[in-house]
Amino acid sequence: MTKNWEKNIRKVVPYVPGEQPNKANMIKLNTNENPYPPAPGVFGALRAFDTDGLRRYPDPTAHVLVKAIADHYGLEEAQVFVGVGSDDVLAMCFMTFFNSGQPILFPDITYSFYDVWAEEFRIPYQQIPLDEDFQIRPGDYVVENGGIIFPNPNAPTGNLIPLETVEEIVKKNPDVIVIVDEAYIDFGGVSALPLIEKYDNVLVVQTFSKSRSMAGMRIGYAMAQPQLIKYLNDVKYSFNSYTMNPLTITLGAAAVADEVYFQETTKKIIATRERTKAALRELGYVFGDSMSNFLFVTHPALSMEQLFEDLKRKDIYVRHFKRPERIRNYLRISIGTDAEMDILLEALRHYPD
Amino acid sequence: MTKNWEKNIRKVVPYVPGEQPNKANMIKLNTNENPYPPAPGVFGALRAFDTDGLRRYPDPTAHVLVKAIADHYGLEEAQVFVGVGSDDVLAMCFMTFFNSGQPILFPDITYSFYDVWAEEFRIPYQQIPLDEDFQIRPGDYVVENGGIIFPNPNAPTGNLIPLETVEEIVKKNPDVIVIVDEAYIDFGGVSALPLIEKYDNVLVVQTFSKSRSMAGMRIGYAMAQPQLIKYLNDVKYSFNSYTMNPLTITLGAAAVADEVYFQETTKKIIATRERTKAALRELGYVFGDSMSNFLFVTHPALSMEQLFEDLKRKDIYVRHFKRPERIRNYLRISIGTDAEMDILLEALRHYPD
Repeated sequence: MTKNWEKNIRKVVPYVPGEQPNKANMIKLNTNENPYPPAPGVFGALRAFDTDGLRRYPDPTAHVLVKAIADHYGLEEAQVFVGVGSDDVLAMCFMTFFNSGQPILFPDITYSFYDVWAEEFRIPYQQIPLDEDFQIRPGDYVVENGGIIFPNPNAPTGNLIPLETVEEIVKKNPDVIVIVDEAYIDFGGVSALPLIEKYDNVLVVQTFSKSRSMAGMRIGYAMAQPQLIKYLNDVKYSFNSYTMNPLTITLGAAAVADEVYFQETTKKIIATRERTKAALRELGYVFGDSMSNFLFVTHPALSMEQLFEDLKRKDIYVRHFKRPERIRNYLRISIGTDAEMDILLEALRHYPD
Repeated sequence: MTKNWEKNIRKVVPYVPGEQPNKANMIKLNTNENPYPPAPGVFGALRAFDTDGLRRYPDPTAHVLVKAIADHYGLEEAQVFVGVGSDDVLAMCFMTFFNSGQPILFPDITYSFYDVWAEEFRIPYQQIPLDEDFQIRPGDYVVENGGIIFPNPNAPTGNLIPLETVEEIVKKNPDVIVIVDEAYIDFGGVSALPLIEKYDNVLVVQTFSKSRSMAGMRIGYAMAQPQLIKYLNDVKYSFNSYTMNPLTITLGAAAVADEVYFQETTKKIIATRERTKAALRELGYVFGDSMSNFLFVTHPALSMEQLFEDLKRKDIYVRHFKRPERIRNYLRISIGTDAEMDILLEALRHYPD
């Protein structure tokens, strides 16, 4: 029997997070995690941490972490907003900035959370098809809209658009907020960060989950003019004042501090990616020129859905998306260590035999 | 000049978190923190933690923590929802359960976040006046409404209503969701938890911030029938799949594991509270019979606002609320250690001389 209270419940199509297998010898290339551990300073910061202080509320401004990020990018602290992963940051952005009756715009093939947030917050939206090469056509974003968001590089395609194209989209949309989601920018892209000094309606969102090897710690951040950051903080403080715990703040600041390690691991991942591209090309796989820490591949003679299942049986986990239809014969493969990619490539060389 | 994008921004009256002073010798009795450190096992769990694993996403279900809480209360895991502090849990509850056109009901003097969330999520609400003794009158909650929430014990009054009164409110409101916010229940109250087995429309929300000495770690939880927990998880997974980091999960589970320490520290706080009540009564202060870890006091001959400022100058921090008007001559004083309360009492004995 349906109860009366049922009708007041927000019913959403439950978002199902990607599988997080946890086997000893698995090759986990399914969630774009960094194959290298966090910077050594993170371990030291943990060991030095005094748990007695946990009885107290944390600093609601997460000052130490905000300052570390601001200093790193040469910004003022008032230009930086932090949240519990870039998902938290983006959810707050959707709530704060997308409140018109006009649909917000994002690509049809993109981060799968955008339409989930739009549904959850009852924001109208329109998905703009990528072209046949899975590229964003900037001209498509010159229509009346309530805001724009896209990842650069895009996910799950890995395709990067140049800074000039990002600027063109921002410039043509002065009346709405434009969010550039740069989760993967550190793997060879050029950040849109300089645009925040030139345009007051653009936010650049980044994360510690990929290039900083801290997916577990849940740290994302937005950078923009102080006015936008203030609006974001107003909404955030009215949602949950204390989101960042002192361990997150301390370990996050320690991660930012180690530029050498960051450069070193990022370069290694880029090198492994390019080596993997060459090997896959030889095997007849087809893919765009990914500038991220993953490849989005297909093969003219193989079923990617079948390959996904077959690899899984060998404890090699990659990602397959059943929707939208036109990416159904693609796999998203995260870049692991050279050794991990070698095991994958070896399996592919003998596939399907 | 106002930009066009300004009109699409969610404008909220910024919530200002209470001050978090950080002086070496201060007596901090302003945010209801526990004066005792987290259970010893929490320190051990931190020391044993391997930061290398932080490169991976955490378990989105926070299984280890959910199981620890479920086991502790003799519930199924499907009856427990966890979030980033009870503020996160309550914000998700507001979003999930309060979606009718009818106003939700809560007391006029209560946790100051309820109206902030209602404003943020554009939920109509009605504040029901407490009686002249700051007590909830259950009959006031028998009107058409879109949902009900109240803390028990109430904040900042500390007043507890008996389980029968809570049940009366739940029973009279079968068509809406009733949330009992039990942040302070472990300091002498009787939890409404048994009601979740009897009524499918009630949620009980608790936190690690007070009785578990973990305000810094940000852990709150809701307990209810699996159907309500599922609705809550559906909304939460569509907001941010990964909210609980592995340190939070591990340290939280370690805190729940130590029942002896929990009983010991809770009893000490209750004893200190009762001793403080007696001493304050002698000094002419007037207050209700708080069953929480704070007292809500006034004095017929003194200005509490002035006292608040004067204590602050001595580095003794208590909490004063400027609104609503009828609590303006009250102070909320958290229960610290016996030594801390002695310093406060000594200052009061000589006040204002």
